[in-house]
Amino acid sequence: MAKIKRISFELKTYEYIKPFRIAPGTASHTHNLEVKIETEEGYIGLGEASPSFRVTGERIESLIPLESFVNELLKGKDTKNFRKIFEITDKFFAFPSLKTALQYAILDALSEELSLPVYQILGGAKEKIETDKTVSIGSVEERVREAEEIFKEGFKVIKVKIGLDLREDIETMEELVKRIKGVKYIVDANTAYNPKQAVIFTKELYKKGIDIELLEQPVPAHDLEGLKYVRFNSPFPIAGDESIKNKYEALEVIKMEAVDYINIKLMKCGISDALAIVEMANTANIKLMIGCMGESSLGINQSVHLSAGLGVFEFHDLDSALMIKEDKFRGKYKIRIPYYYLV
Amino acid sequence: MAKIKRISFELKTYEYIKPFRIAPGTASHTHNLEVKIETEEGYIGLGEASPSFRVTGERIESLIPLESFVNELLKGKDTKNFRKIFEITDKFFAFPSLKTALQYAILDALSEELSLPVYQILGGAKEKIETDKTVSIGSVEERVREAEEIFKEGFKVIKVKIGLDLREDIETMEELVKRIKGVKYIVDANTAYNPKQAVIFTKELYKKGIDIELLEQPVPAHDLEGLKYVRFNSPFPIAGDESIKNKYEALEVIKMEAVDYINIKLMKCGISDALAIVEMANTANIKLMIGCMGESSLGINQSVHLSAGLGVFEFHDLDSALMIKEDKFRGKYKIRIPYYYLV
Repeated sequence: MAKIKRISFELKTYEYIKPFRIAPGTASHTHNLEVKIETEEGYIGLGEASPSFRVTGERIESLIPLESFVNELLKGKDTKNFRKIFEITDKFFAFPSLKTALQYAILDALSEELSLPVYQILGGAKEKIETDKTVSIGSVEERVREAEEIFKEGFKVIKVKIGLDLREDIETMEELVKRIKGVKYIVDANTAYNPKQAVIFTKELYKKGIDIELLEQPVPAHDLEGLKYVRFNSPFPIAGDESIKNKYEALEVIKMEAVDYINIKLMKCGISDALAIVEMANTANIKLMIGCMGESSLGINQSVHLSAGLGVFEFHDLDSALMIKEDKFRGKYKIRIPYYYLV
Repeated sequence: MAKIKRISFELKTYEYIKPFRIAPGTASHTHNLEVKIETEEGYIGLGEASPSFRVTGERIESLIPLESFVNELLKGKDTKNFRKIFEITDKFFAFPSLKTALQYAILDALSEELSLPVYQILGGAKEKIETDKTVSIGSVEERVREAEEIFKEGFKVIKVKIGLDLREDIETMEELVKRIKGVKYIVDANTAYNPKQAVIFTKELYKKGIDIELLEQPVPAHDLEGLKYVRFNSPFPIAGDESIKNKYEALEVIKMEAVDYINIKLMKCGISDALAIVEMANTANIKLMIGCMGESSLGINQSVHLSAGLGVFEFHDLDSALMIKEDKFRGKYKIRIPYYYLV
């Protein structure tokens, strides 16, 4: 028995090393909520919520006052019955980043009690994963320069943000493949293209002999027919991100055959929904990647353990903690760029 | 020009005259948030949010800290450009009750400035609407007694809560039609049946010569195939409520042909989504009803004006303000049971 004695929240603000820019806007800081779970026996579990107003509608200031309600719901529950706790925390579907932090903190406390890392509680499929790093949106030159820096840091998968200007986006990709050799590219429009632009973009790249691993979320979140059109008319795999915020939306997209990849982000859906999406996608032969919002190393730790535990993700876009100023590294993993090691 | 000068929030708690019981649980109080918008010229607009954690995942304590963010987004905007303000407030999709209160308060301030009631800003289709009143879930005897009281009060449409015991629910309906003559019944399972139970329920009623106007939300919110099955196998119209929380879910249900009726509740979706759902449903020949969460007269006022303005709702389940203890009636409508009058 490891009964939950207390759950406490702490607000943390981190500054990005340089402003993070994507098609819908720019972020200079990330506001996160740390969740600490203490059990009667003194085990401590930590989780982190990094809400995205744009994607899930959550605001950090709305999470803070939920502390007492969360205690009311979870106090006295046994961390060993974590599936039961997942069921209770599933009611926080409107606060998915908080749901994640709670669910992970439960697993983390259990991990401390069992002296078994979370990724092994979840199955221990892998002991290392490789992450990409992201190039913010900007001019052709800005993006090429940033990609060159990322390549020099040692990353072998580079994510490029696009969506403000179709022709400049194509030119950016041309310059990148000219100047940087031996990397894979993930491209992300963050909802900013229309379906036809997305098809032009991918067909043009193909014609020019440029290969990309996948194009993420070309079209607006709710345009599932548009997403499907892009999937069936593009020479490269298409991933859904903003369109797939929870397991119900994942099922819909799977039923529609609208994507080649699903980008799971814990901050959109929690661990319980992530587990469901993994099973559905695997069964339906849809590939998986895992991404992040503005998590610190504490929050990225959650996705690292989930991914290593399950071993099902083709690509990892777990770079937010590499892009913010943090006093102290708090992940239960080791970094040797471009890898995260669990042992 | 009537520029927004200030938006302020006030928390209000109301006690139900008697605890309100439905299949998923019981409520003794309702916690609402009042929104006041003041313009530079001194016009004041009021709105009310009554969040439902069960249905939309919102918590009242999460709305309160959003006051300064809301001011930041809306200060200086002109209430006459209310469609522009609706677009901004659409970003609060995770806080739909707050979105409603903001959107209505804008219309209310504009109404004050124009000396034109909100229902006429919205089209002025009707000058009176008829509401039902709701029988809480309980034993057969409890429900019959409560329905008799409601009938004596003068209501001609009675809503009956079901979902804990199929046989008792059928028995309740039998007793009701035996003892009360000249009323219409709406029946609401609040997600508590499975599809087969829902079909048995409606077929049994039909065989016994009992007519109901519609059965609301027989099955769990995300079981749209189950909802469709019930629709196509039941002799009475089927309404979706918990399954349809916003315009995107409405479109999905319409595409699937899963319901005969949509129950619009402003607290689920805001005025902007309600307007979209109305147009889609009318176009698709799907009927409409309008319901409520725990609104006081201030909040019910919002739905009364929307309904009278548009004139498209077959049934009104706008009874929450009749079921709570309120010091002062604050609706801009008059009550003569079972009608609400706009003039």
